[in-house]
Order: sequence, then structure tokens, then C-alpha cells
Amino acid sequence: MILRMDRLQTELPKPKNPSANDAAAIQELLGGKFGEMSTLMNYTFQSFNFRGRSQLRPFYDLIANIATEEYGHIELVSYCINMLLTGVTKRDPNPVSGPLADAANFRNSYHTLASGQQALPTDSMGNYWNGSFVYSSGNLKADLLHNFFLECGARANKIRAYEMVTDPCARAMVGYLLVRGGVHIVAYAKALEKLTGVDVGKLLPIPDISNKKFPEAKAHEDAGLHLKLYQFSTEDYGTAGKIWNGPHPEDGQECKFEPLPEGYGAPVPDLEPEPQLNSPLDPAMIADILKKMQ
Amino acid sequence: MILRMDRLQTELPKPKNPSANDAAAIQELLGGKFGEMSTLMNYTFQSFNFRGRSQLRPFYDLIANIATEEYGHIELVSYCINMLLTGVTKRDPNPVSGPLADAANFRNSYHTLASGQQALPTDSMGNYWNGSFVYSSGNLKADLLHNFFLECGARANKIRAYEMVTDPCARAMVGYLLVRGGVHIVAYAKALEKLTGVDVGKLLPIPDISNKKFPEAKAHEDAGLHLKLYQFSTEDYGTAGKIWNGPHPEDGQECKFEPLPEGYGAPVPDLEPEPQLNSPLDPAMIADILKKMQ
Amino acid sequence: MILRMDRLQTELPKPKNPSANDAAAIQELLGGKFGEMSTLMNYTFQSFNFRGRSQLRPFYDLIANIATEEYGHIELVSYCINMLLTGVTKRDPNPVSGPLADAANFRNSYHTLASGQQALPTDSMGNYWNGSFVYSSGNLKADLLHNFFLECGARANKIRAYEMVTDPCARAMVGYLLVRGGVHIVAYAKALEKLTGVDVGKLLPIPDISNKKFPEAKAHEDAGLHLKLYQFSTEDYGTAGKIWNGPHPEDGQECKFEPLPEGYGAPVPDLEPEPQLNSPLDPAMIADILKKMQ
Amino acid sequence: MILRMDRLQTELPKPKNPSANDAAAIQELLGGKFGEMSTLMNYTFQSFNFRGRSQLRPFYDLIANIATEEYGHIELVSYCINMLLTGVTKRDPNPVSGPLADAANFRNSYHTLASGQQALPTDSMGNYWNGSFVYSSGNLKADLLHNFFLECGARANKIRAYEMVTDPCARAMVGYLLVRGGVHIVAYAKALEKLTGVDVGKLLPIPDISNKKFPEAKAHEDAGLHLKLYQFSTEDYGTAGKIWNGPHPEDGQECKFEPLPEGYGAPVPDLEPEPQLNSPLDPAMIADILKKMQ
Amino acid sequence: MILRMDRLQTELPKPKNPSANDAAAIQELLGGKFGEMSTLMNYTFQSFNFRGRSQLRPFYDLIANIATEEYGHIELVSYCINMLLTGVTKRDPNPVSGPLADAANFRNSYHTLASGQQALPTDSMGNYWNGSFVYSSGNLKADLLHNFFLECGARANKIRAYEMVTDPCARAMVGYLLVRGGVHIVAYAKALEKLTGVDVGKLLPIPDISNKKFPEAKAHEDAGLHLKLYQFSTEDYGTAGKIWNGPHPEDGQECKFEPLPEGYGAPVPDLEPEPQLNSPLDPAMIADILKKMQ
Amino acid sequence: MILRMDRLQTELPKPKNPSANDAAAIQELLGGKFGEMSTLMNYTFQSFNFRGRSQLRPFYDLIANIATEEYGHIELVSYCINMLLTGVTKRDPNPVSGPLADAANFRNSYHTLASGQQALPTDSMGNYWNGSFVYSSGNLKADLLHNFFLECGARANKIRAYEMVTDPCARAMVGYLLVRGGVHIVAYAKALEKLTGVDVGKLLPIPDISNKKFPEAKAHEDAGLHLKLYQFSTEDYGTAGKIWNGPHPEDGQECKFEPLPEGYGAPVPDLEPEPQLNSPLDPAMIADILKKMQ
Repeated sequence: MILRMDRLQTELPKPKNPSANDAAAIQELLGGKFGEMSTLMNYTFQSFNFRGRSQLRPFYDLIANIATEEYGHIELVSYCINMLLTGVTKRDPNPVSGPLADAANFRNSYHTLASGQQALPTDSMGNYWNGSFVYSSGNLKADLLHNFFLECGARANKIRAYEMVTDPCARAMVGYLLVRGGVHIVAYAKALEKLTGVDVGKLLPIPDISNKKFPEAKAHEDAGLHLKLYQFSTEDYGTAGKIWNGPHPEDGQECKFEPLPEGYGAPVPDLEPEPQLNSPLDPAMIADILKKMQ
Repeated sequence: MILRMDRLQTELPKPKNPSANDAAAIQELLGGKFGEMSTLMNYTFQSFNFRGRSQLRPFYDLIANIATEEYGHIELVSYCINMLLTGVTKRDPNPVSGPLADAANFRNSYHTLASGQQALPTDSMGNYWNGSFVYSSGNLKADLLHNFFLECGARANKIRAYEMVTDPCARAMVGYLLVRGGVHIVAYAKALEKLTGVDVGKLLPIPDISNKKFPEAKAHEDAGLHLKLYQFSTEDYGTAGKIWNGPHPEDGQECKFEPLPEGYGAPVPDLEPEPQLNSPLDPAMIADILKKMQ
Repeated sequence: MILRMDRLQTELPKPKNPSANDAAAIQELLGGKFGEMSTLMNYTFQSFNFRGRSQLRPFYDLIANIATEEYGHIELVSYCINMLLTGVTKRDPNPVSGPLADAANFRNSYHTLASGQQALPTDSMGNYWNGSFVYSSGNLKADLLHNFFLECGARANKIRAYEMVTDPCARAMVGYLLVRGGVHIVAYAKALEKLTGVDVGKLLPIPDISNKKFPEAKAHEDAGLHLKLYQFSTEDYGTAGKIWNGPHPEDGQECKFEPLPEGYGAPVPDLEPEPQLNSPLDPAMIADILKKMQ
Repeated sequence: MILRMDRLQTELPKPKNPSANDAAAIQELLGGKFGEMSTLMNYTFQSFNFRGRSQLRPFYDLIANIATEEYGHIELVSYCINMLLTGVTKRDPNPVSGPLADAANFRNSYHTLASGQQALPTDSMGNYWNGSFVYSSGNLKADLLHNFFLECGARANKIRAYEMVTDPCARAMVGYLLVRGGVHIVAYAKALEKLTGVDVGKLLPIPDISNKKFPEAKAHEDAGLHLKLYQFSTEDYGTAGKIWNGPHPEDGQECKFEPLPEGYGAPVPDLEPEPQLNSPLDPAMIADILKKMQ
Repeated sequence: MILRMDRLQTELPKPKNPSANDAAAIQELLGGKFGEMSTLMNYTFQSFNFRGRSQLRPFYDLIANIATEEYGHIELVSYCINMLLTGVTKRDPNPVSGPLADAANFRNSYHTLASGQQALPTDSMGNYWNGSFVYSSGNLKADLLHNFFLECGARANKIRAYEMVTDPCARAMVGYLLVRGGVHIVAYAKALEKLTGVDVGKLLPIPDISNKKFPEAKAHEDAGLHLKLYQFSTEDYGTAGKIWNGPHPEDGQECKFEPLPEGYGAPVPDLEPEPQLNSPLDPAMIADILKKMQ
Repeated sequence: MILRMDRLQTELPKPKNPSANDAAAIQELLGGKFGEMSTLMNYTFQSFNFRGRSQLRPFYDLIANIATEEYGHIELVSYCINMLLTGVTKRDPNPVSGPLADAANFRNSYHTLASGQQALPTDSMGNYWNGSFVYSSGNLKADLLHNFFLECGARANKIRAYEMVTDPCARAMVGYLLVRGGVHIVAYAKALEKLTGVDVGKLLPIPDISNKKFPEAKAHEDAGLHLKLYQFSTEDYGTAGKIWNGPHPEDGQECKFEPLPEGYGAPVPDLEPEPQLNSPLDPAMIADILKKMQ
């Protein structure tokens, strides 16, 4: 059960060069096998399914907090896609002028045919996200190892998306996610360490390039964002700090489990209408509704 | 961005007759085309994607609140499945005895092979939920009509699941969802009515059988649960009441938009371990961990 | 462009033992890789796509006539499934009695959850028919070879469905289709022979068991049904007889291309309501509508 | 059971600018979730599956007539795609010259690798049409609501395809389909109105832009094409006029159910060979066959 | 490039109780996400794709040898399925007797409809194996971590299949694979250890139950089978011993890289015909062919 | 059970113009419905599944040898893709420079996001290869006919890929495969001929263009490569020569079954690193590992 806040976890600057093909690439981070839909749904199902949680509450709480944070990640990636797609076709409400003519050459035709230049739960090739990407074996050790690997695979995707799309909107998003995904990698490493004594964190970074090489990520890490695991609940899931503690494997600083700071994040952007797509409505109809609703 | 509470939206009684085939049927309500994954993801993406929301905020807020409530629904269905699956195989940690032998005849073999007798994002035939079930056209009228239909289709599924599975755990869950899904149907009808003036609510019920025929649903409706749309946010999405108001189309009582009541719902059940599946861990390992974690 | 007749191509007796699992098996003949959806759609697309038809009209006409006949085959298989599913659950409109309780053990749960005990475009495992089953290479020789193989694969499926389901309704349907599918196999063999001079028909039967071993098929063949290719058009596609002529490869009788006989086939059965599924409507609502519509 | 006519429902002008990427976009109208394969198969299965039809014949007849018309729509879209693809690569039968070299940059590589520059049952991203797009619940009210929504979703796709592809061949096709799809939308609205008394037609148009804004559609509507529901059968399905009658919701003119006019439509185009694809055959082989077949 | 030997890697006893539902369960080990098709194809593609192999040959050789061994595993699982399916229906070549009638209640209908009671590349629910199960990121560290996890996930599946299916044929197969899969787990752990210095092997076993608990596996381990990585090539891939060496993490014995022993494994079983399925041919046709082929 | 050799079946020249879109097209020959994954897996499963092989050994041996050769074909196509992808993005290890920026416009985004510019088991549209492409009916005649058709369909794909991609690396690969695939077509034709007496080889070539029109294929045929079926085993599968003998249907030369020649093929290319993708590792890490491994 959740409550929602109308905020993004980090601020996304308006794109300098809206680009449908950039948006198409970013879809991989949303609906790809290693996209945020996958991290969200893996941990969410694992938390619903956790057997024997009364005995192993810190593990349950850890997974539940991370699952909760991931919801904000599908939101962030979706907004980035929506912003990159805003204004990429001609804003002419007269269909005869062929306002979408350029879109015939866009890599992703769903963005204009199925959505109003908006995000969809597909990957960068237009293949739909599906439930086979969820692993929930019920065995805690196997699930944690899976999650550790999943986050590393997701990190590889983010790095490559960063290299493909240079627009500041996308890079702000990816830079933030590299840091927060990095927290999740370390969290699952620490959980495995609690179970086995193996210093899993020393395997990092995977792939073998540091977050510090990405200026947008480095700025967040300089501010210590990679050290905080947040409690994404006002009352519950409070024992994750029994796992998230001790030195960070990359720089040795102390890891802290904290309540999500008051006012975290940034307001959600207001997405401009695209009248050629009747999105959200025909302009005349909008005017009419506004009158009626007063 | 969300916060999570460790509570179910309604209480689920312990099953009288745990049954793998009943659990398999209930999967349709989770990962089927008309399952809760679909309602959750449709409204969630529509809310992320909403263009021109500053002008049409009540519609945005309506969709966002319902989307948020749906998260609690995937949780509820998942717990129901998990409870129906608890104890359906022999609890013998010795693999040689063939503790899962009965499972070779279960309709859904993923429950024991891929999960630890737990819910998965598939439908009742083991087909995975996928993103082609999400509609987000960007046109508000088309999206609302879709949502109205989707909820009616979901209602048909719930009714039939109710008729297939008679265990009280499942019926408590379905009865509750019939009422809350009913609220969503009416909410989308009212939204369409605001846009067009058409009395869409008079089409109801679809399918043509009243919630009052289902005792578990009737009890909730007698208590007025079908009249409340909740604000699933402490601060945001507060204007949905501009749409959710006026008489309920079935009984004419007044509809009210309210903050989610303090302490809503029930505690989440603690799911018993299934040692034959090493879920969550080998018993010896659990003991070992508990010692270490003190 | 088509016109439709409210008739089945052959008469289907009422099932002696309606059976959900028998219906589930028969779905393979509808939506399987080698089901009637596949034959219909392969030939239909090949006919739309035929390049250079003015020069090769007999081939175009042959494919178009067979494509047209196949529509009647998806109809026939669908009715058989519908009839096998009629009455397999309890006809109690009160959901509390659990009228669908038996269905939790049916192999195919879509029949009661997604349909009203009715046919769906899936195969015997509930996997959906999909467009990857269509081959339309544009090369006539390759397409004809494909079609010849497809019909042989379809024949194997029919033979096995016949052996799995013994109810007279299913056997009447399969027996008829074995004969008509046999015509199609020979037709594609003859088409290949016209192109190459190779006596392809001598490869038959594939699989290596004669239609005469199936009493319901034998009865049709005794009446000469395996010798007729019908013109499924009142005016067009009339040159297929340039290919469909000469001796039948199995018994040497003369093949004839003829107009579809007047009054061919049988009336479509009237499918009984299943009120527990609200199919077609709640009984009270039906009464109400009938009154209004007078 | 059907008969077929070798005619298109409307005339398609030869493309001014054949274009593989335009053809790729148009595929959405054929094999997309809201394409003509979906409308065809939804209504076809609903008609096969209709329970209790003796009591509710006008509804059965309405669905059956529309289903039958849809066959002509998959034909029309397929021909449009085929025409847009004709001549888009070099017509050189010598493979060494790389006649398909341009195709490596086409959005849809199936058109040259899997087909002979021809239509396939996929959508605009090359994802295959599949049976999960078919809804046949057995409950008439739910099915009609679905159909009403499906047609509105299909309309949104057509509008956007119109805006993406400006070639006259495509626009003639889309303009015609907007009008005929509009008839289907109103037909399902009227059917729902008969069941419930709700003036569903007043919700239209969805999306909120009139067909009159599209010159090719307007020309048809000026001629009254939007007022006619045709009986696509010489003898059967004749009671649909009990539903299709009364004023059209957009302009108040009287709706009429009529036999399909004699000579409706236009001859099917003869598609030119593409020898570089051996479609239909190697030129030498064609010559050889023609000699033999005389 | 490969050479093939007509031998199984281990001997499979004839099933005591052939069982279609047992065979259906075992399909998970063949075509499931964690089945042998997945391990085979992951390592095979990673070996084809290995960049910079001249510098990192031991890693390349390790992956290539394991990939090669996996081919023998899809073979072993397929034979087990084929043996479990032999004789499960009536061997009556007369279709009228309904020799496959029992199969209408089998969980997997493909085994009789699509195959001749034989293995197919699907999982235990009849979902097809697909290429999304292959991970080949190009980054060695990420690929090795993936492989380590994949083998652990595969191990969980094997353990559960062992508990579901008690027939000696299946248990001989699973017992052997637990040991050889165990070698692969340790091999990838050692490879990661070479890259990072982390003692990954100490994470084992995952899931947390020892192979020694499975008598069929224990027998192989008592004979030291878990200590040998074989060179599956007569000349190439010979440097894997630079990684596969040192103590085994579970029992400390010394790991050895060796040529595949001469005469390894057992003869492949000769699978009996199933004449009711015309598999391999109609008996009369077999006799005829044998005569001709002399 | 197999042994592997680190060699390609034919030499692939370094591409003149590496091209991501050319590589995308070639993927069809790897993971398409008619790609080498399909031929490999069809024959491999048919060989595992062969019932009654003791009586029909030459057929078993024929299929097994061809299956074995196909492994070398997926290897060859994969290397061709890898080589075409080598160097197509900027080799700058600094992510800030956007080294993958060009890739946002590549048709296949998986090559840079999911792989390290490497082959994947997908087709030319990024759809994954899946097990529904495998046919293994158990009936030998049906399986052989399928294989004959499959090879013809694969041949059509190769011809078209040749026409789309003119780079010498791709053409060397396709030219070789046209010849070897041609051997397989004839082999299955001869097998059918043994069963039926029909001169199936006279249907060839399908599509109707000779291999001699492709210079790279012609060179191999001039050397007699189309006459040899190789025994891909040192000891087993030796009776295939009872089928593969007699005149070749296209030029009448004598067909011979022979052991695979000593030293067949060419060394596998060493694929250059792509440091911008961390493939295989960060350069500093490679250096570090090399030091450690000495």
C-alpha cells in the first residue's frame, strides 16, 4: 500500500535538443530487460512474496525500501522520455499539413502512433516489457544474488545510454540513477555479506568504470548521495540499517540509513500539449471544459 | 515518487483449503490482460504522461489517485495467491522424499519451479504480463474511455474468479476489489461525463450483475465503501473531488472524495516458510543468521 | 472483399459428452501454428500480395479460393469448441454457489475467465496465435512449397486431435477437415507440378496414413468430396481449374473445379446461454431487452 | 462461410512517392493492436461465439455484418502497403549489383527479407499481430463496450497515420476507413443505447476531431457514406436495421441499413513484379510457365 | 565448429513409471529461463563474441569449454523427456480407438499434438525458449557475474525438479547435472576471483543445500566428478586450467583441468516407435523402406 | 555430446566498410525464423527425438550430421556480425564525449545497449529467436518435408541478405552458406526420394535462381563443395552415405559422403576490443589482469 507525492526524485533540465531517437534509446532504461520496470517489479514481488519475514526482517525491509525507491525511477525515466519527445513534430492541428511527416523516419513509431509523444513500457527496440524479467525464487540467497547481478546489468545499460545520448536532460537523469542504482548494488552486496561473510562489495565496480567518471554522478557522490539508503516509509521498513551500515566499498565512507529527507527531489515538470496529436484534447475542447469546470 | 506502508488494504482470512489450482486461477487477477498489473500500469503511465495538466488538473489528480490505489491491489492479489499456496506441498527438507511430487499435477508449475509457492506476474495460464496491455494515447477522452472499459473487463474477470474459487481468503479479496474497482468504473464514467455531458454511469453495471449479489462486496457497500474515492497522498492530487462528486449511479447516494483514513486496512500476513523449497533459507542457515545478526 | 453466409460447411452433431479438456485440445486446430487461423491467414496474405498476377492468374485464383474456404474452417473449429464447452459448468446465476468451481481444474482457464465458454485464437496450451506463423515470401515457388508443407503439418495435427478427442462432434469436424485439407494439399502439389514437372502428389499421404482410415473422412471421400475444388466466388477466381484437374494422386479419380453448390453445408447451431457467465446477458436483462425491441 | 469478390472497397490511386518507411508506418493499421486484423478478428470471433442469438438476433446480425466488412479493410490496408512498397528498390535481377542495398536503412527489414516488398501481419515496429488482441467475453454488454472502445482507439491510429503519411494512396485509404470505422463506432454506440438507454453517441467524436477535417473522408461523408450500414450477405444477417436506424449523432441525418450496392468498390490493382526479389518468379521462369500453360 | 559423438554424458536408466506430467515438469530444465538451452546459448554466444581474446585467453577458453559441455546437457534432458514420454499413450495404430484419449488430460498437449511424445524447446508451462534469455554484454566481468548467477538459478530449478519427479531416470539425469552445473558455478566463481581477488566461492552453495543431500549427485562427487573441468576439444581451449585450479570451495580438494576421458559417458538409448503417432513412420512403410534400402 | 574446434568453416575477410545497419540486416540469418539458429535447433531436436532409429539409421545419421554442421553456421554468421560491428562507434573510453552518439540512429540499438557491438539471438528487427520455430513432429516424412522447406526458406533469406549487404565479409559468408545450405536442401530431397520415389530434387532451385549467379558461391561450387556431405564425427553417424549419393540434381555430378577434411576451414578472427563499451574490460583492468596472470 502506498502514498504518492507529486515530485521527481531529482530535477530534470529542459532538453536542449528534443530528439525522438534519443527518446527511443532511453526507453531501454524504462522497459528493457534491465530497465527500471524490471528493478521495480523484481523487488516489489520479492517483498510481497517474502516468506519467514518475522525472522529476517532487516532483509525484508531492505528489499521493500529499494522497491519503493524504484517507483520513483520509472517515473524519472518516463519524464525524461516525455521531455525529449516534446516538440519533436510540427504543432499544427490541421492534419492535412502532415504534421507528423518526420515521424515516419523516427526509430520508434509507437511514440506517435500509440502515444502522444510519450513513454511506453517497451525497450529501445519497441519490444514490450514482460513478466519473464521478474525473478522471485523464494530463496533469499538466490534472490539477493539475482538482485546484485540485475543492478550491475542495469548499470551497464545506463553507462551506454549515457554515451549514446548527450542531451543534459538525459544525462541529469542517468547521472542520478547511476548513483542511486550504485546504492542498490552495494546494498545487495552487503546483504549477501551478512549471509555469507564474503566481501562481495570488492567485486565492484561492474562494469569496471567508476561513477566518478560521469560528472553528473560525481556531483551527487561528492555530496554523499551514494552513502544514504533512505527509508521510503514514514513508519515501516525501519530495520534496513542492520544491513546498510559500515564502510562504502569504493571510498570507505560510512553508509547511513536515514528517513527520506523532507522535501526531497523536485517538482514534476508540466508537459506541454501536442495539439497535432490531440494530446490532451482538441484546443477548442480544452477551452470548453475549462469554462464548464469553473 | 511514493512512500510505502506495510499494510494490506483489507484483511485476508487464512485459507480454509489452500489449493494450488485455486491460486493458479487467481493469477488472472494479477497478471492477466485485465488484471491489477494492467490497471496499475495503465493509470501510472497515463499520469506520468499527462500533457497539459495545469489546465486539467482534476483529471490528472483523479487518474493519479486511482493509479496509486492500484498498487495496493497488486499487493492484495499477490498475498491471496501466496496464502493459497502456503502448505500445498509436503514440508520435508529432505529432497529424496519427493516433497513436491504432487506439484507435477498442479496446473501452474512455475509456482514450485520458479517461485517458492509465490505469486508471479503471469496470468492464469502462465502467460507473462506484458506492456502491450498498457494504453496511453495521450488523448484524454480516449484514455478515459479505455480506462472505463478496462475496469469493466476487469470486473468480468473478478466475477468469474469469484465463481471459480470459493475459499474465503479469495472471496474476501475479490469482494473488496469488486467494490473498489466499482469506484474506479464510476470515477471514469464521471470523468467522461464532465467532458461530454453523457450520463455514462447509466451503462452500469457491466457485466449486468450487481455487486450486491456478492455477500463480501455487499458488506463493504452497506458500509458505504463504494462512495469514497480516497486521496492516496498526504499533500498532492487533491482536486479529484471536482470529478468525484454527485450521486452514485447505482443507488443515488452522494459520492465523497476523502483523505485515506488513518490506519486504513490491515497488517500484512506473515507468510510461513516452505523449507522443501529453501524458502526463505535452509532452516540451519536461518538459525545461523539469526545468531549472527543479534 | 467478402460476403458471408450464416451456414457451417458441414453439420456438427451435438456433443455426447461436452468436455472442457476436449475443447482445450481442439484449440490447437484453431490457433496453433498449424491451425486454421494459420492456413486462412497465409493464403489470404499471399493472395493480397500476389505480384504479377495478370500473367499467372490460375495460381492467384487457386490460392484465393483456398483462402476463402479456410474462413469456413476457422468457423467450423470455433463452433466445435463452443459446442464442446456448452454446459460444462453449473448453470446457476447465483455466484455464491461457485458455479465455476470445476473450472479451476480445467486445462484451459481462459475458456471461463476470458470467454463465455467459447473459442479463442489460442492453441491447445493457451499460447496466442501470432503473425509469425504467416509466410508470404513473394516468390511463388517458395510460397507454394510452404503451403504444401503447412497443409501436411496441419494434417498431422488433425490426425492427432482425432485420436485425442473421441466425441462425435469433434470427429465430424475433424473428419470433414481431413478431406478438405486433403484437397488443399493436392492442390498445392498440382500447382508445384505445373511449375516444375515433378510429381509432387506421389509424396502423399503425409503423415503416411490414409484418410480412408478415418470413418468420418472416408464417408466424405466415398461421396467424392476429395475431388472437388470449389470456386468460392460467384464471379471471380474462375481459372483455378487450369491447375486443379487430372487424376487425384491417391485414387486416380478425376479432379473437378466447380462452383460451390447451392445450399452447401448446414445451418449454424444456436449456442445456448450460460447464465453463470452472464453470457450473453443476465436473464432479467434479456427479458427486458426483448420487451423493448418489439 | 464466405464468398469472395476480387474487388477493393474503394479505389486506391497509384502512389506519387512509393516509400518503404511510409509503408512501415501504415503497417500499424494492419497488424497493430488497433489495426484491422484486430477489428476483423474481434468481431469474427464474437459472431462465432454468440450465445443465445435466437433471442438477440439484431445484435448478432450487427456484429456479423461489421465483421464481414472488416475483411475488406485488411485487404485495403494490405494493398496500400503493397503499392507503397512497389518499386522502392532497384529492379536488377543480378544480385551482384546489390539491388536491395537501400533496404539496409529501411525501418522495416521484413518487407525485403521476409516478403517480396509486401504486407505482413505485423505492426509499425515489426511486432506480430497476436490473439491477445481479441476480446470475446461472451457478455454482450461488455463485448459491445469493448468494440466501441476498440473502434475509437483504431480511429486515433488512423488519424495519426494520416498525419505521418501524406501520399495520396495512403490518404485515400485512410480517408475511406475513417468514414467506415466511424459507421462502426456509431453502430456499437447505438447497440449499447438499445441495451441501456444511454445516449452513447454523444461521446463522439473520440478523439475529439471531426472526420470533416480530413478532405478524403469529408468527400465520402458529403456523399452520405457515413449513414449506411451495409448487409454484407445476400441472404443472412438482415435484422441489423433494428439497431442501425435513427439520426446520426454527429449531423442528425437518418441512418439506413442497406444491401451492399451492386458493383461496390473498385477493381483490385495488379501489383508489378519485383524481379530482384524473384517475386513472383524469375522472369525466365515466368516466360516458360506461360508457354506451358497455354 | 564442432564434431559430434553419439553418446550421452551419463547413463539414463529406463523409467520405472513413464509419465507425461513428469516429462512436462522436466521441460523446465530444457527450455525454461534457467534451462540448459539458456546455459548453452549464453556461453556459446559469449564465446563467439569475446573481444580481446588474445590477451585473456584463459577466460575465453573457460567459457568455450563450458559452452561445449552444455550441448551435452540439452541432449541429456531431451533424452530424459523422451524416455519419460515413451509408452504413455496406447500403441494402437487404429485412430478410431482414440489411442491418445488420455492425453487430453496431460498438462502438456504439445507432446502429443506437436511432437511424437518428444522433447520441445519449451518450458514446463509450454512457453517457448527465447533469445531474451541470453546475456552477452561484452564486458567480461558482467558476463561472468551473469553466468555465476545463471548457474545458481539453474541449480534451484534442478533441485525443485528433483523434488517433483521421483522416477530414477529423471533423478539420474538431475543428479548428474547438479554435479556438472556445480562445476560451472565454481568455475565462474574462480574466474571472478581471478579478476577481483574476492573469494566468490564462499557464497556457495546457492540455494543453501549441498549436492551431497542428493544421493545420485553424491555418488558422482564421491568419485571426484565435481573436481574436473574437461577440455571439450582435442586441440583447442587448452588454457582454462589457469583459472580452474586450486581447492574446491566446498571440500577443499584440488580442482583439475583434464582432457575429456576416452569413452566418456554412455550409449544413447534407442527410442521405441510410437505407431499411434506415426512416429517415426507407419509400420508398413518402415517395412517397405527397409526392404528398399537393403 | 560434442567436441569443439576453434575454427570457422570458411575464411571471412575483414570488412571494407563496417556498418551497424548491415550487421542489423545480417541478424536475420542468425536469429530469424529461417536463420541458422532455426536450422541448428530443428535438426538437433529431431536427432535427439528420433524414434526407431535402429531401423532407419541412415536417416538419423543424415539429420545428425547436418545438425552438427549447422553449429558452425551460427558461428559463422555471428562472427560476420561481430566483424561488421567492430569499430562502428568512437573508441573513446571517456563517456562524456558521447562515443556512442551515432548509435542512437542505428536500426538495432541492442548492439550497443545490450551487447558490446556483438551478435545476439534476434532477427533483423530485434525480435528474439524462439522455440516456436522448431518443428519436430516425430513423423519422419513430415520432418523431412519440413526440413526441405525450411532450407528453401533460408535460401531465400540468404539471397536477399546478399542483395542488401555488399561488403565482402558478408558476401563471403553468404556465398559459403548458399553452397552448404544447398547441400542440405538436396540432402533432404534425396531422403524424401528414398522414402517415396519422387524426384524431389527436380523442384530446385527454390527460389528459382541458381547459386552460380553469386560469384562467391560459384567459386565454391567450381571446387565441388556442393557435392560433399561431411561426416561431422570421428566415429558416429557414418551411414548417411546411403542417402547422400548419386547425381546432384543441378549439374549431375556425383555426390559423395566424406569425413570432414583435416584442417577444414580457417582460424577464428581475434575481435578487437571496444573500450567505449568496456568490452572486454577497462584497459587499465586488462593490464592489471595480465600482470596477475603471469
